[in-house]
Amino acid sequence: MDNTALDTPRGLIESATAAVAAARSYIAHARMAVGESVCTDGRTAPDRLENAQRSVHGFAWSATAVEGLAQLTEWAARLAEHNRFSEGDRLVLRIGMGEYLAQILGGLPMSQNEFVRPPDMNASEAADRLEADEAVRQFLQHGNTPHTRAELARCLATGWRADESLDDETLDASREGIRRFSRERIEPKAQAWHLADALIPDEIVAGMSALGVFGVCVGAQYGGLGLGKLAMCIVSEELSRGWIAAGSLGTRSEIAADLIAANGTPEQRLRWLPGIAAGTVLPTAVFTEPGSGSDLASLSTRARQTGDGRWRITGSKTWITHASRSDLMTVLARTDSGAPGSDALSMFLAPKMRGTADNPFPDPGLSGGEIPVLGYRGMREYALSFDEFEIGGECLLGGSEGAGFRQLMKTFEGARIQTAARAVGVARKALELGLSYALERRQFGKALIDFARIADKLALMAVEQVIARELTYFSARAKDAGARCDIEAGMAKLLAARVAWSNADAAVQIHGGNGYALEYEVSRILCDARILSIFEGAAEIQANIVGRGLLSRLPSQ
Amino acid sequence: MDNTALDTPRGLIESATAAVAAARSYIAHARMAVGESVCTDGRTAPDRLENAQRSVHGFAWSATAVEGLAQLTEWAARLAEHNRFSEGDRLVLRIGMGEYLAQILGGLPMSQNEFVRPPDMNASEAADRLEADEAVRQFLQHGNTPHTRAELARCLATGWRADESLDDETLDASREGIRRFSRERIEPKAQAWHLADALIPDEIVAGMSALGVFGVCVGAQYGGLGLGKLAMCIVSEELSRGWIAAGSLGTRSEIAADLIAANGTPEQRLRWLPGIAAGTVLPTAVFTEPGSGSDLASLSTRARQTGDGRWRITGSKTWITHASRSDLMTVLARTDSGAPGSDALSMFLAPKMRGTADNPFPDPGLSGGEIPVLGYRGMREYALSFDEFEIGGECLLGGSEGAGFRQLMKTFEGARIQTAARAVGVARKALELGLSYALERRQFGKALIDFARIADKLALMAVEQVIARELTYFSARAKDAGARCDIEAGMAKLLAARVAWSNADAAVQIHGGNGYALEYEVSRILCDARILSIFEGAAEIQANIVGRGLLSRLPSQ
Repeated sequence: MDNTALDTPRGLIESATAAVAAARSYIAHARMAVGESVCTDGRTAPDRLENAQRSVHGFAWSATAVEGLAQLTEWAARLAEHNRFSEGDRLVLRIGMGEYLAQILGGLPMSQNEFVRPPDMNASEAADRLEADEAVRQFLQHGNTPHTRAELARCLATGWRADESLDDETLDASREGIRRFSRERIEPKAQAWHLADALIPDEIVAGMSALGVFGVCVGAQYGGLGLGKLAMCIVSEELSRGWIAAGSLGTRSEIAADLIAANGTPEQRLRWLPGIAAGTVLPTAVFTEPGSGSDLASLSTRARQTGDGRWRITGSKTWITHASRSDLMTVLARTDSGAPGSDALSMFLAPKMRGTADNPFPDPGLSGGEIPVLGYRGMREYALSFDEFEIGGECLLGGSEGAGFRQLMKTFEGARIQTAARAVGVARKALELGLSYALERRQFGKALIDFARIADKLALMAVEQVIARELTYFSARAKDAGARCDIEAGMAKLLAARVAWSNADAAVQIHGGNGYALEYEVSRILCDARILSIFEGAAEIQANIVGRGLLSRLPSQ
Repeated sequence: MDNTALDTPRGLIESATAAVAAARSYIAHARMAVGESVCTDGRTAPDRLENAQRSVHGFAWSATAVEGLAQLTEWAARLAEHNRFSEGDRLVLRIGMGEYLAQILGGLPMSQNEFVRPPDMNASEAADRLEADEAVRQFLQHGNTPHTRAELARCLATGWRADESLDDETLDASREGIRRFSRERIEPKAQAWHLADALIPDEIVAGMSALGVFGVCVGAQYGGLGLGKLAMCIVSEELSRGWIAAGSLGTRSEIAADLIAANGTPEQRLRWLPGIAAGTVLPTAVFTEPGSGSDLASLSTRARQTGDGRWRITGSKTWITHASRSDLMTVLARTDSGAPGSDALSMFLAPKMRGTADNPFPDPGLSGGEIPVLGYRGMREYALSFDEFEIGGECLLGGSEGAGFRQLMKTFEGARIQTAARAVGVARKALELGLSYALERRQFGKALIDFARIADKLALMAVEQVIARELTYFSARAKDAGARCDIEAGMAKLLAARVAWSNADAAVQIHGGNGYALEYEVSRILCDARILSIFEGAAEIQANIVGRGLLSRLPSQ
């Protein structure tokens, strides 16, 4: 390795800071170039946005990669400040900067067959300037090299792990507690539960309740921990590392609690929040319909008010996770307000009885069938049919008809941040499985990790997991600061889902044929990881949100 | 779209030809640059090859992409010559050239987290020259654009399919016959068979036998069709399009027939080839062991000759496909010749009884257990245990002890070409499923295919399927011409497996949540596609073969 400015911790962080500034400048130019093609009178025009979807999404992905590098650099700077910027951590920064800058300039994967390059955004000249920046040039030449990857793989082999302390005693202790639970109670059995298509056992749910998992963000007055989204990320990440289902059980509690805390009447809050926080009330989210995936505004399930003020719900819902063993449905349905599209949607808090294996949906007016799926098991997916399903007049969230879509939209940020955290946990699990197999398995007389292509995969898995993680924490901090953060949440969800998938794919490849055997956990990780770019807003939806959001923000923001 | 040289069929092909020439020149320079780092005295040095694995493999991938473009151009030129170079076919060439050239210059995916770029091969200057080439510049600017992708998606939507005639009546008729069989008898039930983990039904095997599937490459004197590997590709592709298992049943027949035809004694040929060709003898390939995946030379199963000349086999084998319902095992085992490594391996033709559900391994000395897997079902995978399993002295292939590894090596080319053809079929099926879903499913008031990101995915799926297919046919033609073609076969296997995987991944994304439901065929395609980069020589092994092979070839070749 030549001596470069990147060889000292200080020089490395200074170079990274300078390269991020140059990359931000590139993004600002790309924003202008893309903006010109999609704006009329300074505002984005829907039809032009549609026509320029590739450039808008490509811009979103490029901006996401740059924000990822910015957060990676922030992480590194904090470690250096606390005098614990280890060799492995330095290599993570170095390789991450080198690789993502090269992708931004030469081809950034939006999916396996879609790459965005500067000309796609009419940003070739800005890209030339980025490439000519001295710090950027250093990272392109000396960042991601055979040598740095080999060194990082060596660090991984000798037990180093990327620093994950948040320099916050409560949060670090939370992580430690959840991790122990996940490692001792979930990990040893997750594969068997997955293969049996079993529900997460009740005693695991009880254990999670005891740890406060379901009330992380619920106020203390309702029995919750009253912590923020950053804490929720850590909990979700560590549980998902054991099993994505464990990290996902709380998603529905999170959404329901967010809906109720922000929009509920005082009676609704008192009725539901304590049970949700305690984990005795398990909610399920009843939004999607067979004809509407990402297009929620088009849904057609109806709620009709009867003479006595009660509501009757009729219609079909699908992809309802954990529908049978839950106690409370948050149902989005069309009410007859006469308003068009999403303005006629209302949110209901509909109590239901828990189902059993013999009788999954005991309530009158509600039936359902399971949808067998590749992964993401443990809660089961259902198609539900509502036939004059009756609930009380007090079940309309906040007593506000027609507010359901807006109420739901406000939960998207939190749900996406939480989903990004789940992806980070899955990505980390993939790294762990790939690494331990590469250390144990020998071929041609040496351990797999001693082959460059295996070491390369592991190094990049480790690097990208940290980038996705730091971007996720960044979005959680923005949320905790009370700022609108749909862009940050979208970026985190977008990148973390891709990293979980590519890490799972790489871990399977490291396992060879064994990665394809159901006996090996990594085969489940592949299946589990695949859902992350689909649900909670597909990758294309996130890119659209991020792209449009950035184009609409005033330049000064 | 600006007017460019690419707008006329003649200009397009001339530009493609020129760009391929420039790309070949780039590859020649990269070869020299990589060669310098791995050669000592003009020969590749094993230790230096190891150290430079990333650059050698990156070079292999780059050369593979260039050969893919060369074969795509050959295909287009043949169509133009026959006056049937349709608009869709022209767009395939145009987009394929644009995209792969951009990948070669800016980042070519070897896997989801490993990209090779010119500096990785010390070939930056050659890349600059490639980028400056006028034809290359045309394709980079006007090849893969939002407009050309939208146009190609429009062609797909209106029923156009990439031309697949081989201008050979026998081959085209073969394709048509097998396709009809696959469409009528296999496709409607493949998903149900997969979900039930069923064996391919006997009547399907009989139907395939009647079509001559198992004897495509077996000489007419043994009852085979006596056709070549190109015919075998078409058969495998069309069967795999219905179900990868159907396209894979013949792989074992192919390997056994190749082994016996090339190495068998006259008695062995007469005993086995007619049954293999007729499909009444189903062979299974018994090579891999628990400790040896890609590293066959290290295997430890032993065959010991008894006083009466018979052989007794003892040891463990794993990943034995279709082991139970087969009649003949081609077993690679170590014999006590005293020779080291692979020189002590011998190949045996070991008859066995077909197993049943109740008694999967009725022969004395042979037992086995099923390995449940993600996909690639229909034949089942087994771990086998040989305990003094006895066969006659006449079972040693060719009567030659210690020749097994070399005998097997000679079948690798054919098996890899056939595997590439399977991948091409899977890639095509993924395209078909993604396309039909994108045409049917509506969101936000329009069909999915009318969204740019969906159209983009479909366009690239169509383009890459053709590139992988033409590269596969190229390798088959080389084999049929009697040439050594390990490099060509490796390239075809390498690229086609990646394309099958990325196409499957994209098709799932197009399906959204439904892509994750076991009810939808595309969920199986994802699972089936994943094996293709693992078996028959993992992607890393193929890249090594291609890279080392090209570096060892004399420059004039």
